[in-house]
Order: sequence, then structure tokens, then C-alpha cells
Amino acid sequence: MTAIKQDFADITAFIYEIEKLKQVERRIKPKGLSRYENSAEHSWHIALLAQSLMPYAENPVDPLRVVTMLLIHDIVEIDTGDKFAYVAEHDDFENEHQAAKRIFGLLPDPMASTYLSMWEEFEAAKSHDAQFAKAIDRLMPVLQNLNNGCQSWLEHGITVEQVLKKNAGVAKASEALWMHVTDLVKQKAQEVGVPLS
Amino acid sequence: MTAIKQDFADITAFIYEIEKLKQVERRIKPKGLSRYENSAEHSWHIALLAQSLMPYAENPVDPLRVVTMLLIHDIVEIDTGDKFAYVAEHDDFENEHQAAKRIFGLLPDPMASTYLSMWEEFEAAKSHDAQFAKAIDRLMPVLQNLNNGCQSWLEHGITVEQVLKKNAGVAKASEALWMHVTDLVKQKAQEVGVPLS
Repeated sequence: MTAIKQDFADITAFIYEIEKLKQVERRIKPKGLSRYENSAEHSWHIALLAQSLMPYAENPVDPLRVVTMLLIHDIVEIDTGDKFAYVAEHDDFENEHQAAKRIFGLLPDPMASTYLSMWEEFEAAKSHDAQFAKAIDRLMPVLQNLNNGCQSWLEHGITVEQVLKKNAGVAKASEALWMHVTDLVKQKAQEVGVPLS
Repeated sequence: MTAIKQDFADITAFIYEIEKLKQVERRIKPKGLSRYENSAEHSWHIALLAQSLMPYAENPVDPLRVVTMLLIHDIVEIDTGDKFAYVAEHDDFENEHQAAKRIFGLLPDPMASTYLSMWEEFEAAKSHDAQFAKAIDRLMPVLQNLNNGCQSWLEHGITVEQVLKKNAGVAKASEALWMHVTDLVKQKAQEVGVPLS
């Protein structure tokens, strides 16, 4: 009982800390809302996109590992803020790594080290699980732009060329899927006036 | 390629539809925010609470099934709205079941039927996975109240007696945990003036 009390205190400290992710704003507005999306609801949404697209993955992936990576990958933004994909250079890895150590470190082991190593695996994007998870994280804002009149691309002056270059990693989940999405992006961009380059 | 195009159209229809969960308001405010929580970010939060508490489950559970149940269980609220635990009678099952059929039915099979049967399993709360998932869903607002000065209990005139009765199912995840939480609730309630009964 003493053990469960201490572990429970650590786990609730983690749960209370990560609630702050509900305050981290992204650059995209969910369709039908005038406010920006936050990183917590985004993490929920991509976990379900991942599950839905897993049957089409080019390489077999472990569903639980992929979903867990997606649920935890943005937690570091509590310390570092959301980075807009088209602006951020990945020189921010060290700060994010520190944040991951601090926040996952609130948990008892082995959970703390499991989450930290999954976060590192996601960032490194070398395993099939991490590549698939990253592809899904990239695909989601593309889908949301297709669905909301390309709000975040228009708002930030992003071109079709940038979209296709920045998100080309989606092909690592499925080449056929990415080719199809590429066509959809070009069509929609023409409709709503997103410049080609 | 034609098959992936059709499936992808169905999957994106589902993904666009469930984005509406970001608009469904609950009665609790995340600590530090003046707005109410939405059901999408809540679903993310409980998926991680579930993973963190799984090692303490009284009966062994399947992590992927529990997490998936928690990620999808509130989606029906897109049609029916969030029901405050202390008000809702469960005569709403038929409407929620219809919503589940409509929304999961947007997906290609077998995903549509898998999600629907997981949703039904969660509602029935007979399997260990469903009982654990439900316990987590119940535990989260208790924790949030412990962390935010009992905001939703005070705002809605909820008593300690109601809290302990309504959430007694948490004991199905872990008896020791629920006993400990019961103590924490009584302490905090006294501190902030939540009446005993």
C-alpha cells in the first residue's frame, strides 16, 4: 500500500503536468471552430488516424507502440511550445530532449524510461514504427487543410511545393497513399488559391 | 490503387467527422484554463492515465484494447453531447448506440465493426478491459477535481457522498488505489468546502 501511494503520487504528478498540453496552440483551426487547435486534442486525433491507416502500412507496424508514440510525442511542447512545421529547424532537439527527460521523469520506472526511449525513437525516425507514426503526424495537418479550405497554408503563405516537400515522409507509410494525397493537394490548392511555388 | 482511394475517402470522412469532438464541452476546466475541457483532449488524457496505471490493474488487461476503447468511447457525443456523470441516467443508450453505428459506420470494414463492438463492450462493462477502461474514465475527473480545487463539484453542488458512490467502479481497476483516492477526496473536500452529503 505504501508502494502504490508513492507510485500514485508520481503518476498523478505526471498526469497533472501533461494537462498543460491542452494549452499549447498549433497553427491550424479545426474545421468549424474559430480557435486554434491544441496539441492534446491533436494527439488524440492522430492516434485514431494511425489506427485507421495501419492496414495500409507499407511495412508492418506494432499498433500499441505507434499509438503510444503519437500520444506522447508532443508532450515536450509543454516546455518548448509548438513548432510550425514550415518554420522550425530541428536545432531544437536538445531543448526538447531535456523536456522529455524532465516530464517523463516524473513517472516511476520502468514507465519513465520506456516513454523516454519511445520519444527518442520517434524523433530518430529510423524504425518502421517511428516512421509510420511520423508519417501520420505529418499527414494530419495536410488532411485538415484539405478539409478547411487550406486555412493554415493560406494564413502563413505556404506553397504547394512546400507542402509536398515538407510532408514527403508520408510516403514511408504508404507510397500509393502519398501519391493519392499529392493529387488531392494539387486539386484543392488550385480551387482555393494556394500558389504552386 | 482504386481500392486504396475508396478506403481513403471513407477513412478521411471518419477523421473529418470525429474532429467535431473537439467542440463537445465537458463540465470540468483543465487547471489553469478558464474554458471548459473538450471531449477530444479528455480522450487523449485518459489514454495516458490508463497506460500509466495498467501495471497496478487488479486483473490483467490488454493495453491496446483499453487504449483504443478510451480513444473512441466518447465519439458518440458528437451526436448526443456530453452527459455530466452526476445527472445522466443511462436511458440514453439507444441514442448513443445509433450514434456509434452512424459514426463508426463511416469507416471501411472490418474497422467499422471492430470499433462498434469495442464501443459496445465498453458500455457493457463486463470484460476486464472494459471495466478497467471505465474505471480510468471515472478516475480522471476525480483527479482533475483534486488538482483544480474541486471546481466542477463546487460548481454543480456535488457532495463527497455522490463522488464516492458515482465513482466506486474505480475499485474494479484496483481496490487499493480506490481506497487511497477515497482518502484524498475526503481531505481535499474538507479543505475547499465540498459538503460531505
